[in-house]
Amino acid sequence: MSATVDSPVQVSSDAAGPHGPSDEVVAQVRAVARRAKDASRVLATANRSTKDAALHALADALVASTDEIVAANAEDLARGRAAGTSAGLLDRLALDPGRIVAIADALRELAALPDPVGEVVRGSTLPNGLRLRQVRVPMGVVGMIYEARPNVTVDAAGLALKSGNAVVLRGGSAAARSNEVIVGVLAAALEQNGLPGDLVQSIDAWGREGAVALMHARGLVDVLVPRGGADLIRTVVRESTVPVVETGVGNCHVYVDETADLAMALPIILNAKTQRVGVCNAAETLLVHQAVADEFLPVALAALADAGVTIHADAESRRLAPEEVSVVPATDEDWATEYLSLDLAVKVVEDLDEALEHIRAWSSGHTEAIVTRDLAASERFVAEVDSAAVMVNASTRFTDGGQLGLGAEIGISTQKLHARGPMGLAELTTTKWIVHGDGHVRP
Amino acid sequence: MSATVDSPVQVSSDAAGPHGPSDEVVAQVRAVARRAKDASRVLATANRSTKDAALHALADALVASTDEIVAANAEDLARGRAAGTSAGLLDRLALDPGRIVAIADALRELAALPDPVGEVVRGSTLPNGLRLRQVRVPMGVVGMIYEARPNVTVDAAGLALKSGNAVVLRGGSAAARSNEVIVGVLAAALEQNGLPGDLVQSIDAWGREGAVALMHARGLVDVLVPRGGADLIRTVVRESTVPVVETGVGNCHVYVDETADLAMALPIILNAKTQRVGVCNAAETLLVHQAVADEFLPVALAALADAGVTIHADAESRRLAPEEVSVVPATDEDWATEYLSLDLAVKVVEDLDEALEHIRAWSSGHTEAIVTRDLAASERFVAEVDSAAVMVNASTRFTDGGQLGLGAEIGISTQKLHARGPMGLAELTTTKWIVHGDGHVRP
Repeated sequence: MSATVDSPVQVSSDAAGPHGPSDEVVAQVRAVARRAKDASRVLATANRSTKDAALHALADALVASTDEIVAANAEDLARGRAAGTSAGLLDRLALDPGRIVAIADALRELAALPDPVGEVVRGSTLPNGLRLRQVRVPMGVVGMIYEARPNVTVDAAGLALKSGNAVVLRGGSAAARSNEVIVGVLAAALEQNGLPGDLVQSIDAWGREGAVALMHARGLVDVLVPRGGADLIRTVVRESTVPVVETGVGNCHVYVDETADLAMALPIILNAKTQRVGVCNAAETLLVHQAVADEFLPVALAALADAGVTIHADAESRRLAPEEVSVVPATDEDWATEYLSLDLAVKVVEDLDEALEHIRAWSSGHTEAIVTRDLAASERFVAEVDSAAVMVNASTRFTDGGQLGLGAEIGISTQKLHARGPMGLAELTTTKWIVHGDGHVRP
Repeated sequence: MSATVDSPVQVSSDAAGPHGPSDEVVAQVRAVARRAKDASRVLATANRSTKDAALHALADALVASTDEIVAANAEDLARGRAAGTSAGLLDRLALDPGRIVAIADALRELAALPDPVGEVVRGSTLPNGLRLRQVRVPMGVVGMIYEARPNVTVDAAGLALKSGNAVVLRGGSAAARSNEVIVGVLAAALEQNGLPGDLVQSIDAWGREGAVALMHARGLVDVLVPRGGADLIRTVVRESTVPVVETGVGNCHVYVDETADLAMALPIILNAKTQRVGVCNAAETLLVHQAVADEFLPVALAALADAGVTIHADAESRRLAPEEVSVVPATDEDWATEYLSLDLAVKVVEDLDEALEHIRAWSSGHTEAIVTRDLAASERFVAEVDSAAVMVNASTRFTDGGQLGLGAEIGISTQKLHARGPMGLAELTTTKWIVHGDGHVRP
């Protein structure tokens, strides 16, 4: 359940097209959503022990079905290899017994987390005697549109179940057989535990038309969470009338200030860029104050190059790069790019103002970090950077539900509505006002 | 700042059309939104006393400009009368010195409310020593699309200012001159108080094309709040790529249970239906348990008819209506309708299950009330009704930011994402994770 952004697999052609879905597909997908809504009502009033027992049962069922799942996955892998899919994408798609055990363990960890449903968020008694409570309740039906990682299928089902929601899944077609078998195993295990199998359904059978129909199922689907590359997310935001939580695009910056402890700055940028590539909380641009650029950049660029990073540098950074480090000139496209690879844009800035200006112009609002010893600089950075997370003297890689103690996450929101930053179980709930009176009428 | 839903004034033709806006209009509206974004950055770091002083200055400026505002309003009224606008709509549009004082006083009341910005929502120190805070921060730019009530212009500007946001306003064309003068007065007063006038801007000059351009200004506008009739809201939900909070459509139910105190039930349904007509929290359907229908309905229908209510009744209710009460037969359309008038649909149900089933089928998810003495019935109603607010032995009219103690509201959300029920100042903010480390990197 890490903050991973998959590279797109047939995204634009696969997730949604320029033409609307046929009436037949719309009817089928709406029927799925309606069954999900009915099933969600059963779960909404289920207590925690019922839900946790079901999560353990799902985990057991997945492990017990290892052979069947691995066989279906082998079909997807064979199809992928025949289509020339890259080794990296094939690795994300692949399941083996060890990975299935890890996926099942994640469900058991979910069972151990507190239940957000029923939490009283606010409560009071008004002067007129009305008793108010604002209580967390499940959303109802959560839609997920994602790419070819079958573990997301299980993650999403588990998070939805724990938070009292039904889920309608649209996975990448490259993982179609794996997802089909996994959804079947999960639904059967739910039924065996006295819960509706319709709590976990897939609409993969209706392809990209089905995905568009899901995006238009306002009133039946309460929230849609796209999880994947920038193209997928753009398509969902444009097409959907169901409320969307935008996740994941992270063009993250590390700024090394005039007063930074340079011995601290070096491991932070190395960690933020190289500890894991291809994730949304990895750094994509390094900004360095001109006063420390002479001292910091020769060392930092050499260390980054040693770690296999390709440097895309502005003129001043190129001047400071050691001879043995080959750098390519940075253009505006570099400032805008979420590389998701061993590439880093580097720029020398005149001062904190220019760093803030650069971040304002190019950031995707995910995570930015400052390395500094100056209190005023850290406070300005925290106040003026308009991102989901702002780090002071820490790696950008900490923007993650697990790292921040939320226990699990369904994605990292980069919009401001409803959820900002890692979305955990509470972010899959809404609230309801419950008002008790004794015949109160409004004067 | 009440939960009023205006009857539509030229809604579908006025708010958005089938054709996209011209490039010129898109550029102009995006320039407005960009200036709003720049202005919002100044306000985001302003402290409460600056904002409260500005609210008082805006109130004073409105009262000082009474003559100018009333003159502009007279032009709108003359245009409306010439176009044959109804007396009710003209009354909503009309401003006089007394109303302007009331509008100004609402701004002063906003100044007295606590500032949501800066509130620490969650905070902890992780085992690795990272210090976390999740802090409320302004959204940035709030877009409002509404109809012909010039007081909403001031309400929206005040709520946005108090919560640290810039606002871009699109009012009804019927109030165009009034809004133009009011926005001019507010912007000038902001400038005189050292704040950017661009915090409050109107895009009325670009008509419905401008409204559509605003709906597409994702990235520049952080949230869009439509406030008005069902047509307006549907158009905004369908067209907008900016995240929307859907407000206001209320098809609210009162259910009188088998064990209800009928002496309590009668004032509740009278209040819910007649205390104020044309508001989203008024009741539109009365459901009565068959065991008490014989006793309750003859009295209740007579009292409702006395209050001027037209009864749309199912067969059983028609049978129980006193002779002197004329009733019309109810159809499915009645169950679906938010009358916003002195009309009420009435149905006798077999039991609580049928009442819950009816509400599930027809409610808009705003507010439902049960009148009962039975604890188990009240608990089932509260748990199973999926609405923003559920009342036990109280009128539906209490679903209102002022009544529930939020102090002020920008609308009543009937969606589940971000805000559900009355949206107050806190609902105009988002959060930011602030993480302090000492060189922390992810292992």
